[in-house]
Amino acid sequence: MAFRNKLSFFVFVLFVFLVSATFSLADEKEDLDQLLRKCKQQCRTQPGLDKQEHQKCERDCEEYVKVRQRQQEEGQGGKQGDGLQSDRYKDCVDFCYRWPKSAQLQHCLETCEQVAGAVIEKFLNTEEREDPQREYEKCQQGCQERRWSQERVRSCLKECDEHRKQREQEQGGRGGQEQGGQSEEKGRQGKGGQSEEEGQQGKVQLLEKFNKRSDLLQGIENYRISYLEANPSTFAVPNHVNAETIFFVLSGQGTITLLQENNRETHNLERGDIIMVRAGTILSFVNRDNKEKLRVASLLQPDNVPGDVKAFVGAGGRDPESYYNTFSNEILEAAFNVKGDQLRKLFEGQNKGVFLKASQEQIKALSRDESSEHGTGGPWPFVHGKSQSNKPYNMFNKERLSQSNQYGKFYVVSQDDYKMLQELDVQLSYANITKGAMIGPYYNSRSTKIAMVVNGNGYIEMACPHISQQQQQQGQGQGRRQQGSQQGEKGQRGSTSTYQKMSGRISRGDVYVTPAGHPFVAVASNDENLEVVMFEINARYNHRYQLAGKNNILKQLEKEAKELSFNVPAKQVEEILNKQQGSLFYPGPKQQQQQQGGHADA
Amino acid sequence: MAFRNKLSFFVFVLFVFLVSATFSLADEKEDLDQLLRKCKQQCRTQPGLDKQEHQKCERDCEEYVKVRQRQQEEGQGGKQGDGLQSDRYKDCVDFCYRWPKSAQLQHCLETCEQVAGAVIEKFLNTEEREDPQREYEKCQQGCQERRWSQERVRSCLKECDEHRKQREQEQGGRGGQEQGGQSEEKGRQGKGGQSEEEGQQGKVQLLEKFNKRSDLLQGIENYRISYLEANPSTFAVPNHVNAETIFFVLSGQGTITLLQENNRETHNLERGDIIMVRAGTILSFVNRDNKEKLRVASLLQPDNVPGDVKAFVGAGGRDPESYYNTFSNEILEAAFNVKGDQLRKLFEGQNKGVFLKASQEQIKALSRDESSEHGTGGPWPFVHGKSQSNKPYNMFNKERLSQSNQYGKFYVVSQDDYKMLQELDVQLSYANITKGAMIGPYYNSRSTKIAMVVNGNGYIEMACPHISQQQQQQGQGQGRRQQGSQQGEKGQRGSTSTYQKMSGRISRGDVYVTPAGHPFVAVASNDENLEVVMFEINARYNHRYQLAGKNNILKQLEKEAKELSFNVPAKQVEEILNKQQGSLFYPGPKQQQQQQGGHADA
Amino acid sequence: MAFRNKLSFFVFVLFVFLVSATFSLADEKEDLDQLLRKCKQQCRTQPGLDKQEHQKCERDCEEYVKVRQRQQEEGQGGKQGDGLQSDRYKDCVDFCYRWPKSAQLQHCLETCEQVAGAVIEKFLNTEEREDPQREYEKCQQGCQERRWSQERVRSCLKECDEHRKQREQEQGGRGGQEQGGQSEEKGRQGKGGQSEEEGQQGKVQLLEKFNKRSDLLQGIENYRISYLEANPSTFAVPNHVNAETIFFVLSGQGTITLLQENNRETHNLERGDIIMVRAGTILSFVNRDNKEKLRVASLLQPDNVPGDVKAFVGAGGRDPESYYNTFSNEILEAAFNVKGDQLRKLFEGQNKGVFLKASQEQIKALSRDESSEHGTGGPWPFVHGKSQSNKPYNMFNKERLSQSNQYGKFYVVSQDDYKMLQELDVQLSYANITKGAMIGPYYNSRSTKIAMVVNGNGYIEMACPHISQQQQQQGQGQGRRQQGSQQGEKGQRGSTSTYQKMSGRISRGDVYVTPAGHPFVAVASNDENLEVVMFEINARYNHRYQLAGKNNILKQLEKEAKELSFNVPAKQVEEILNKQQGSLFYPGPKQQQQQQGGHADA
Repeated sequence: MAFRNKLSFFVFVLFVFLVSATFSLADEKEDLDQLLRKCKQQCRTQPGLDKQEHQKCERDCEEYVKVRQRQQEEGQGGKQGDGLQSDRYKDCVDFCYRWPKSAQLQHCLETCEQVAGAVIEKFLNTEEREDPQREYEKCQQGCQERRWSQERVRSCLKECDEHRKQREQEQGGRGGQEQGGQSEEKGRQGKGGQSEEEGQQGKVQLLEKFNKRSDLLQGIENYRISYLEANPSTFAVPNHVNAETIFFVLSGQGTITLLQENNRETHNLERGDIIMVRAGTILSFVNRDNKEKLRVASLLQPDNVPGDVKAFVGAGGRDPESYYNTFSNEILEAAFNVKGDQLRKLFEGQNKGVFLKASQEQIKALSRDESSEHGTGGPWPFVHGKSQSNKPYNMFNKERLSQSNQYGKFYVVSQDDYKMLQELDVQLSYANITKGAMIGPYYNSRSTKIAMVVNGNGYIEMACPHISQQQQQQGQGQGRRQQGSQQGEKGQRGSTSTYQKMSGRISRGDVYVTPAGHPFVAVASNDENLEVVMFEINARYNHRYQLAGKNNILKQLEKEAKELSFNVPAKQVEEILNKQQGSLFYPGPKQQQQQQGGHADA
Repeated sequence: MAFRNKLSFFVFVLFVFLVSATFSLADEKEDLDQLLRKCKQQCRTQPGLDKQEHQKCERDCEEYVKVRQRQQEEGQGGKQGDGLQSDRYKDCVDFCYRWPKSAQLQHCLETCEQVAGAVIEKFLNTEEREDPQREYEKCQQGCQERRWSQERVRSCLKECDEHRKQREQEQGGRGGQEQGGQSEEKGRQGKGGQSEEEGQQGKVQLLEKFNKRSDLLQGIENYRISYLEANPSTFAVPNHVNAETIFFVLSGQGTITLLQENNRETHNLERGDIIMVRAGTILSFVNRDNKEKLRVASLLQPDNVPGDVKAFVGAGGRDPESYYNTFSNEILEAAFNVKGDQLRKLFEGQNKGVFLKASQEQIKALSRDESSEHGTGGPWPFVHGKSQSNKPYNMFNKERLSQSNQYGKFYVVSQDDYKMLQELDVQLSYANITKGAMIGPYYNSRSTKIAMVVNGNGYIEMACPHISQQQQQQGQGQGRRQQGSQQGEKGQRGSTSTYQKMSGRISRGDVYVTPAGHPFVAVASNDENLEVVMFEINARYNHRYQLAGKNNILKQLEKEAKELSFNVPAKQVEEILNKQQGSLFYPGPKQQQQQQGGHADA
Repeated sequence: MAFRNKLSFFVFVLFVFLVSATFSLADEKEDLDQLLRKCKQQCRTQPGLDKQEHQKCERDCEEYVKVRQRQQEEGQGGKQGDGLQSDRYKDCVDFCYRWPKSAQLQHCLETCEQVAGAVIEKFLNTEEREDPQREYEKCQQGCQERRWSQERVRSCLKECDEHRKQREQEQGGRGGQEQGGQSEEKGRQGKGGQSEEEGQQGKVQLLEKFNKRSDLLQGIENYRISYLEANPSTFAVPNHVNAETIFFVLSGQGTITLLQENNRETHNLERGDIIMVRAGTILSFVNRDNKEKLRVASLLQPDNVPGDVKAFVGAGGRDPESYYNTFSNEILEAAFNVKGDQLRKLFEGQNKGVFLKASQEQIKALSRDESSEHGTGGPWPFVHGKSQSNKPYNMFNKERLSQSNQYGKFYVVSQDDYKMLQELDVQLSYANITKGAMIGPYYNSRSTKIAMVVNGNGYIEMACPHISQQQQQQGQGQGRRQQGSQQGEKGQRGSTSTYQKMSGRISRGDVYVTPAGHPFVAVASNDENLEVVMFEINARYNHRYQLAGKNNILKQLEKEAKELSFNVPAKQVEEILNKQQGSLFYPGPKQQQQQQGGHADA
């Protein structure tokens, strides 16, 4: 129960994996036709559905049967869970709830669970993210936001109740290994690859490798996302990492210090600051504010083993351990030209962890913004780009604002702005979507986008062409075509399913990925702005093509291309394309409805 | 029977995989010596062999025994079919036919089939490619072209008869799943990864991933080949692909339209035109001729998952499905600012597929060659190379002709000619080999070459160093050395087999790959020119080194290096190297023979 | 016995793989606590240990138990031997010998062997490297070099005796497949991927692929190391390779000849010369000295299949086989425009192998240093960088000396010096460490370093963060933490083991790899200088950060950062950091000790 509530409302189920299905094709084949008939019959006898909802109910029946069928095929094909599967789970659960309360419900939900195992990547723990009461209110609001039937809304509200109970139990008990989805997720974080250096005063979280999540994310397997959080008035000990790193300051007042050969740079950081640091550079952070946490997101690209990020601490002791301690006594004595007991004093003094409470004087001294050239050890021979300062660059400069209207603001820091980004072929952008509004549909021509939800909540939708050509042809394709012929004459949208809808709720702390070329929309909830920072991989020559509004790329089609492509008169096409005069950001579904003076079925 | 005929004559068996061999080493070991003796004895008693053919017969015996031995070793080593294996199959079959008609023949052929499973990649279906009668005539011609004994020619002609019968049956029946090689191959195309959007008016074929074919093609795993064919007077609906694409027009009169942000480009295309289009660009094709088909080959390089090519159609309906249909109703209504019923009209109108018949007026309107800048939405922020026109570049300009004589013409479009090719580090070239002539031997120093046979037929030969170092050392090497010592004293060419000969027939519609560094020859048949378009990967710093003719690179060797390397007087080496005064293209085997006034054994 | 001697003294065990462990966790769990108690008790009752050695003994007990525990966990986890494991074996063996002679010793050693399988890569065969008597003397010296107890030194010397006996047996017998480690290693070379073209007059050795050795070397999987050795007055036949190649002359007087289209270059080579040759270039070597061998190391980067290096010989006959022999007779006749019998003369004359004895006149003629432009075949169309001469560049120029003091010399040839290195993003460096001195600790910020020991011997130490994040979290981490809490209160160095020590003896002919970011030290033995040539991959933007001496990067830390990081007063930190005034090279452990006037326990 907990699991299903969680999933339908609060979990971001963008990436859904197939779990092994064990149906026997022969027997089930007939069941499916029967199932479809039965399901549609229930749509007809279902109370409280208007005509459009009735049609939707029938389409849902077909979608559900399709899911079942795919399970059978995939179960038979012996192919298990190695591909990205889209948000079939969510659709499936949604459908189950629309379906009349019956003995079938339980079976229906179980089927959904067989289809999909939800995967979620979060850079904030759930308990930090939201107060349960507030979450509950948002949930209720979410139910009422969509244009659903009374019946549907009621069932939705009931889920909210259940979810709140669960959350409260979790916050009370915290034992919770057996509490379904919620703790499942935490468990996965523990096992699945998030390395968390958690002390009293801060933490560093390295998110799981993308290619572990899905084969479709292979292209970004050499990029990792990390999240750092430091308590007020703390110092994070100097360390270096074997990866080029781009830091983005999410909130707080920080200072970063970079050590390089004969030079030390200290930069104060604030929200929106971007700083790229080369692999191997020793750096430390200070949170110089005495109230607010410092939060920093980063994108890492390791130079050596793909995706393998490692940190090294020299100036440490026992905790964090200094790598000096790894060398033999005699080596260290020779290197430092001092006796072992003195070295022991140096390298055994520290045992308070990576994040250390610092006095106001220390903070003040460590926060002087400066770049100094010390020493005269002579320049090293291979000092490419040695004296290039790593000065941070702020996202929220006026010039970075590339698009803005009452529905949202879009900021971009391109490779032309901050040259060092060229090396990683990365660009950063930031969308602040006004509450109730939405961004898109649009697609990136070349970039794959790694997005982190910084504030607010809402949901996303994405169109994804069928999983893989092989699967498509091995049986799924066959199923699809069969399906297609059943539904072709109905002329209903989505029935041929060349694309799968990927969708899910997102909220503060979520990470999601949008591959290049994939049409995409994000909608902010009605209660707060949705803010998202995006690392765009393969940024060179990337274009953001809009699929609606006054810059809709389809408006560029010749008249004849329009009439041929859509098979309706060109004038009619143009009339529709010209209706939306906004650009990139638009009023969201609910707002739009109000502007139009309400729909027949509202 | 069908299988063997096909293979020995019409199938391009460049890539041959080992199938599992199940011999027991211990027993067979003695058999092999016996087999060799017996085989050589039969050479001696074989009628109709001149001295040279007799020697060849004995060498074939050794080669056959070597194949058998390798089978044993590989069978034992448990290594199954994961590497490129050379044309052992063809040599094996050739040998079997040279061998006297006996109870051994059947066994011999079976052995060959155990060694090799033919793999073929075609961008044209077999039935489209050639009329069986014409194919029959070519087959007969092929038998007589080579310098074979009467006996051999007769058996060869008999195979032609059999092959024709089989082809005619296929064209009649078309049931054919059980008809051996021919339908095997079609089956593989279906399953193995060719995604084919076939409508009434055209088709798009995406050829299988190269690395699926062989580990040796890993280096080009991020490149795919696609083939488009559109009927006269048709329009292919606009779409975008998540891959950088280089189009090459094989034949016909086309028009391509590219949409980019605030600009639309329309270019007329003719045979030889090259146009590179960046990932994510929306494009459509028109075949503006009302008689001829438009045929376009393309090389794709996906930006994200290696080798994963996906197409997205926006301006569509139910078939091709528009990705707009994937989004929720309420999202679309908000995005377009119109009601759902109007959107349904727009996105449900089209159901005629990707290729649409167009009127003469529509064709005319869509074929205006122009580049227009529309809209004033302001420049997007990250418009690298935005206004660079994608103007096509023609292969057959005079300046592109890099080499030409009566035996052939070689055209090259380098990265200096068409700058956009630099991004993919690709170069295109085109060889038109006069009928009866040949190109090479030569090798590319860095490029791996993906070649598509556009016209004509013939055969290729390539020298390939031993499969992999491991295999070489794991047992095969041992076998080889053993073999070497058996044969060393005979002083016969090819007996040490450091290289394997890869060879095969090629004809219109075939695709083959030549890795960098591999010496290579292609020979045109006597009845028509052989035309091949080549995509060369890793083109930067590539050189084409000739291994014969007046530019033979070995002519650069110092006198002393010549005499040391060949262990014969330098003068003798030079005499031979200077005999051929041509360059790159030469008279083919048959022609040469005639020029020389015939050989003793002709 | 032979195995253990070998390992503890002469084998470079940097990369150690886990072998399958078959303990049952449940039973052993209690054993371990008992084992630890028992072990520590023996430390207490052990004679001849001073206080520090007693503490070390106890720590060793803990380390040993940790090793055992890890075995259990890994045995249980089903994870077998796919990761780099550090020098646990060596530590384990060291520990076993410290432990009192008892029935436990044998068991202890067996345990070690279960933990680790030594892997070693050598570019010189062991028997070539050192005379057993000389090796014996060095071994003895090694025992006395370290600051060990009398007891320990005695046991060490005994091992030297045993090792000498074994070596002498090997040199006598040479049957030796059953003689443990030594022949194991040779066996591995044979099987494991070294392809060796060995003739009478020279040899070429291609070292095993790095990624076969460890997943952690994936980042350099497209680089290979090769070693060539030619006898005095020999000629290595012309050939081309499908890889960009950087040659470094280790010793001797050579000449290299490069053939390119219409031009031939001949360069004389001496020790320290670097020359980069592009893939596909035909080249030959001459050893023009009549006494000394020519030795050349090379780094290869194949353009196509990662790590797949192949050589092609054209100007050859039967041995080395010419690839011309792979083509059909009729093709060759057509290509050369001569009859088959003449070709046979040309291509069957050579059967003496790759390395050929040459007369003084031939050598003289082949050693003329020149670059000639022949022919007028017209420029090829795609001749990027055609006329750029491949002139060699010498490492030992004065300007290349980047660091020098009485303890060592460091030479660097950067991409700025030799532009062609940019293409491969590689840099070469050379360290000549004075006998008894050491280099480091330091780390490379971006480069992974492939090092070949050219002269001398010594040992290295490296700090390596824990294997992989997954393993860390899957159970090892758990074990570690458990361990940590047991030991936390003792405040002993190394007990938390965030890093593993990788260490091992190195001597002439060894190859080792240091990944980017990893702190590293190398120490020369007291009897000869240790000379190492290094190929540094990912050289762009690389910095060499020193971790000791006057350029110690930690000296750049602010005063406050020092006191926070080390948790001791900043003044104390600075006092220690300032003690060593040298840079990069320092007196080694033994020397340092003498300078300081000896330690209490010396």
